[in-house]
Amino acid sequence: MIDGTQAEYVRVPFADTSVHPVPDGVPAQDVLMLADILPTGYEVGVLNGAVRPGDTVAVVGAGPIGLSAIMGARLFSPSRVIAIDLADSRLEAAERFGADITVNNSRQDPLAAVRDLTGGLGADVAIEAVGVPDAFELTVALARPGGHIANIGVHGAPAALHLEEQWIRDITITTGLVDTSSTPTLLRLLAGRQIDAARFVTHHFTLDEFPKAYDVFADAAETGALKVVLTR
Amino acid sequence: MIDGTQAEYVRVPFADTSVHPVPDGVPAQDVLMLADILPTGYEVGVLNGAVRPGDTVAVVGAGPIGLSAIMGARLFSPSRVIAIDLADSRLEAAERFGADITVNNSRQDPLAAVRDLTGGLGADVAIEAVGVPDAFELTVALARPGGHIANIGVHGAPAALHLEEQWIRDITITTGLVDTSSTPTLLRLLAGRQIDAARFVTHHFTLDEFPKAYDVFADAAETGALKVVLTR
Repeated sequence: MIDGTQAEYVRVPFADTSVHPVPDGVPAQDVLMLADILPTGYEVGVLNGAVRPGDTVAVVGAGPIGLSAIMGARLFSPSRVIAIDLADSRLEAAERFGADITVNNSRQDPLAAVRDLTGGLGADVAIEAVGVPDAFELTVALARPGGHIANIGVHGAPAALHLEEQWIRDITITTGLVDTSSTPTLLRLLAGRQIDAARFVTHHFTLDEFPKAYDVFADAAETGALKVVLTR
Repeated sequence: MIDGTQAEYVRVPFADTSVHPVPDGVPAQDVLMLADILPTGYEVGVLNGAVRPGDTVAVVGAGPIGLSAIMGARLFSPSRVIAIDLADSRLEAAERFGADITVNNSRQDPLAAVRDLTGGLGADVAIEAVGVPDAFELTVALARPGGHIANIGVHGAPAALHLEEQWIRDITITTGLVDTSSTPTLLRLLAGRQIDAARFVTHHFTLDEFPKAYDVFADAAETGALKVVLTR
């Protein structure tokens, strides 16, 4: 559903309606991260979740989209950002992106951890960045009464919504696909060095190393790859 | 969880923090409807659902809470309010309360009906006023992309949330319990005759007819009872 391309040059019909000039001094590899991961985490996670100063924000899933949500959430000065993932390698990345606390839910109960940190209440904003029923159901459970649950994950199956618990809890659940309306904002934040998109770039290759770059990206658990940049 | 009473007189501790003076000229039976049904439909359905002028609003369930949501929705000048219920008697009540279109979903496919009325899109705001999984799942399906789903129903079981369809549809789902923050507003609307709470009152009894009043209320399908008022 999303048009895309991988090429050195590309023709963009009606470009005035869909492309933005890169601000002076912003490296090309940084703006690459605005192609969709940063706006996705920011719009569908942080803005939909309505993160506010002082909030406790829980992010379930610390892949590139979860990391974008963590980076975006920090712009609103939350009290703490808690990253939850099954892989220590991704949780280490989450710390580099601004998570204050990490929880490996293969070893720790994330619900108990978040409740312990919040006097039993839960997170003000809980963000789903995985796309499987278990992760969504966990995300809903993590939110406090009155909390916001922002789903970013691309799902292939239904999840159970525990209305027998949630009907009374004044929660707000949002879903969405990025529309990149935040791209001008994110470009200004890049130009002002208020976000560091270069953090996503773990590997560089030249264009003739395309297959190798795909292998490294496909084996992210081993290589620690977040995003791979190809240059001439 | 909600304190309540049935009595001719009642002592209210800290009354300054929890009761409101009745405006002159507003009948006692009208303000009875503000005890919780009108604020519930208004706050948890209409305000949480963010009904706006020109909206198509679908209300699933036309019991007293659904009727309150219909009455409350009209305050925001929707293009049309569609009431959906299994009972013709409740749908007739829905018309009296301001529903433009009624759908009996024991005979008609409500999803097809709402889509036909909206060029295939669905309702801007879909309100659940039943409290069972099927009704919630229908309500979610009725909303258009970008639409709001406001759950009012008190649920006892989980519902399936079809994230495989909804993750991309930019929906907002809310739940909640009335907190009666809208009571001052609703009192002004009653005093200004902008809402007609008397419509809810289908039967009157005296206090010594209590058991009979309960029987009439319990057999609403036969008696058409919405709310029963007991007076001296």
